[in-house]
Amino acid sequence: MPRTNRTEKSGVRLPLGERGDGRFYGAHILAVSQFTRTDLTYIFAVAQEMRTMVERLGAIDLLRGKILANLFYEPSTRTSSSFTAAMERLGGSVIPINEVRYSSVSKGESLPDTVRTLECYSDVIVLRHPETGAAARAAEFLRKPLINAGDGTGEHPTQALLDLFTIQEELGNLDGLTVTMLGDLRYGRTVHSLARLLRLYGARLNYVSPEILRMPRALIDELDQAGVEQHEYAELDDALPTTDVLYVTRVQKERFEAPAEYDLVKDAYIITPETLAQAKPDMVLMHPLPRVNEIALAVDNDPRAAYFRQMEYGLYVRMALLAMVLGKA
Amino acid sequence: MPRTNRTEKSGVRLPLGERGDGRFYGAHILAVSQFTRTDLTYIFAVAQEMRTMVERLGAIDLLRGKILANLFYEPSTRTSSSFTAAMERLGGSVIPINEVRYSSVSKGESLPDTVRTLECYSDVIVLRHPETGAAARAAEFLRKPLINAGDGTGEHPTQALLDLFTIQEELGNLDGLTVTMLGDLRYGRTVHSLARLLRLYGARLNYVSPEILRMPRALIDELDQAGVEQHEYAELDDALPTTDVLYVTRVQKERFEAPAEYDLVKDAYIITPETLAQAKPDMVLMHPLPRVNEIALAVDNDPRAAYFRQMEYGLYVRMALLAMVLGKA
Amino acid sequence: MPRTNRTEKSGVRLPLGERGDGRFYGAHILAVSQFTRTDLTYIFAVAQEMRTMVERLGAIDLLRGKILANLFYEPSTRTSSSFTAAMERLGGSVIPINEVRYSSVSKGESLPDTVRTLECYSDVIVLRHPETGAAARAAEFLRKPLINAGDGTGEHPTQALLDLFTIQEELGNLDGLTVTMLGDLRYGRTVHSLARLLRLYGARLNYVSPEILRMPRALIDELDQAGVEQHEYAELDDALPTTDVLYVTRVQKERFEAPAEYDLVKDAYIITPETLAQAKPDMVLMHPLPRVNEIALAVDNDPRAAYFRQMEYGLYVRMALLAMVLGKA
Repeated sequence: MPRTNRTEKSGVRLPLGERGDGRFYGAHILAVSQFTRTDLTYIFAVAQEMRTMVERLGAIDLLRGKILANLFYEPSTRTSSSFTAAMERLGGSVIPINEVRYSSVSKGESLPDTVRTLECYSDVIVLRHPETGAAARAAEFLRKPLINAGDGTGEHPTQALLDLFTIQEELGNLDGLTVTMLGDLRYGRTVHSLARLLRLYGARLNYVSPEILRMPRALIDELDQAGVEQHEYAELDDALPTTDVLYVTRVQKERFEAPAEYDLVKDAYIITPETLAQAKPDMVLMHPLPRVNEIALAVDNDPRAAYFRQMEYGLYVRMALLAMVLGKA
Repeated sequence: MPRTNRTEKSGVRLPLGERGDGRFYGAHILAVSQFTRTDLTYIFAVAQEMRTMVERLGAIDLLRGKILANLFYEPSTRTSSSFTAAMERLGGSVIPINEVRYSSVSKGESLPDTVRTLECYSDVIVLRHPETGAAARAAEFLRKPLINAGDGTGEHPTQALLDLFTIQEELGNLDGLTVTMLGDLRYGRTVHSLARLLRLYGARLNYVSPEILRMPRALIDELDQAGVEQHEYAELDDALPTTDVLYVTRVQKERFEAPAEYDLVKDAYIITPETLAQAKPDMVLMHPLPRVNEIALAVDNDPRAAYFRQMEYGLYVRMALLAMVLGKA
Repeated sequence: MPRTNRTEKSGVRLPLGERGDGRFYGAHILAVSQFTRTDLTYIFAVAQEMRTMVERLGAIDLLRGKILANLFYEPSTRTSSSFTAAMERLGGSVIPINEVRYSSVSKGESLPDTVRTLECYSDVIVLRHPETGAAARAAEFLRKPLINAGDGTGEHPTQALLDLFTIQEELGNLDGLTVTMLGDLRYGRTVHSLARLLRLYGARLNYVSPEILRMPRALIDELDQAGVEQHEYAELDDALPTTDVLYVTRVQKERFEAPAEYDLVKDAYIITPETLAQAKPDMVLMHPLPRVNEIALAVDNDPRAAYFRQMEYGLYVRMALLAMVLGKA
């Protein structure tokens, strides 16, 4: 039923004349698998321009008169606010649509009908949806670009891009790094997507998690076949000294069958100043936020603590994507 | 208690000097009955200008610095988003106020107090309210213009205007058309308002509905006295071949006393490609959305399916009304 | 853990070069106690400029490209809308974050983490929070300015400032006035803050309330030591004739142990045209809104009824504060 088919894997369409290059102009941003290394280099170059612009001017008028429909079927204030800020710093406007589940839009209406209605009002749609694959399904029906802001246990590509951009900005380079992922590696789509992107840069990946929250076998096999060096550890100490990037995720008590099991392991996954004492002096400590207690507050002032800067890099990446899909990058 | 009385039926006030004509400048938009045919011609001319502008430029600065208070006492994401987009495409800003029922604004506060407070912050108020007559009641207290975005079973004038504008834009003309209304004609304020507007254009109206959802007798009598040719049918087949505009509304199961009664009739009110095979080649197929299953998905790509374009025409009509009541049309 | 300490009592930081004066540039607005009389004179001068500007132009571009994160942990549509309008009338943009309690931002996340995240996206944060002291606690962690929009039974400084500005604009002067506060003087943070500010202007304060809702002893003592003349009354009649400003607050039935107790006193705290017949011809009648029945509707058209103008003055005060903390006043 789509009028035009724009869901080709690369996500790249021919330029329509507004700009010389036009890479990603009119494209949907659906999954990290749609990006080549060249794509990422380009996105990050635009994100760096956005960073420079924000630091110098605060905002510009690049997307003046453009409207973003920010369509969130489940709450995610952090992501929603980030896209809102990105659009506003580029001079554009936002139609905020939160908690669609309880609103008239969703009253029995199908997702395709909802996005086609919003397409009548806006220039680009950001979609957060609880069902895996919802973004790709919606995009089939659209003539205007859609950006996936997380669909169930599926993809959250802009999170993965901002994680990678954070590493580049903090270390100045993405090649040949040792990246250690800590915590809940089983359910965290964040670490899955980041691992897939790091494959393009010859990273060595360490996985540190409780037994029941190990990285899924299928993903390990997939990366193995792509030639990625991977190691699993039960404790951080063994992996920490050689780690360039430590990516911490939350270990939720509810994942364990018995509270006692949780109590046994929980302290092994909390980062304290003592942990950092054993880490490289220029290691990058990341976390997708929100954190609860998995990183001690006393760590916040350590220059290696990059998690709030990570939020800021997210703004630049989302600005870059919005500008690109609207042909203004 | 109103400071000035602006609820005169015509809705037209004297121009205050900002523009040559100033038709509707400062006026409230409360009910379709306030519009003459000349008014409608003028509104649609402005809406066409808006359409041209959006297609060429995307947005302009006509309402830059103006603020819309978008006050929704019940959720209606579609209408709310449409007004938000209309204001933003004209360069204005929006104060979004959703689910007022649960907010502090409504904590025992009367509607007149709430709108008078919002008037202190904004230049125009859009009001959606569950009670019939709420818009006119609120307008009594305001010095700034209010646009009724639906009040209970009362009026939803901008929906009626966009329906009529859709017909004009799709067919190029409004005079002497045969318009067939299908489905729930009893409770749908949409079809009631549209029927009243079509009276001004010498339309012939066909009503096709289950027995218990027939067009209200009072409305039929009202239009009859105004000289409108009306016909009632139990089945679409009899009316379809001569129909210029087919306006479909949803037949809700809950309206029937017994599920069996609903099952008996439901298929007669579902539009499929087979239905369209018997229709005029340039017939306009409309629906106020959201649809559930009353129009098959397979119909969406038929050029006669105008329901998503209808949403877009709604944007232009609302842009026109906002510009007009703010004296900038 | 704060990177810089900006919570000094005066709230004034050195200018950073953007403007000659820069008073309050980068400062947090946390409590009325941070303001000297000179500060208030300055704020009100800027608020007057804002008033003139809005009346003449509607809006300007002073804060174009600036972003306000409007963070409301509890609903307060009135205050939230006022800040939104203030930012938009200055050409800035808003990230609206309502009902945080139910959103992902708050999912176990600490207030400091939430505001530090929002600081990555925005230029200024407005915070409404149910816990006393929340604003000061959050500000400790921020490099960008925070404005307290009410924290529990603590402070709501912008309300107090707008109350005082209302008196100045209505009477042309703030010195030596007799201000009578009526109703619930025990729980109303509004009257507490206003009383503290009026101390700077040699006001004589009258308190009229039911026995169980009297002004707190501690506050009376505090103002007594500062030399403020204070009088308590059980009935308005005794205080009314010499009153320059009558500040009405709501007496809530729920505050009384027995409904009969409430019924005994309630009529003594309702303002009617008869009440005003005994008041000075230029008395200013104020109310923080929403009102329920404590001021009769018949009073609304009396020129002394200033409560809706009070909302408008609030807009100007908030515009002034936003411009000031962003270094653009």
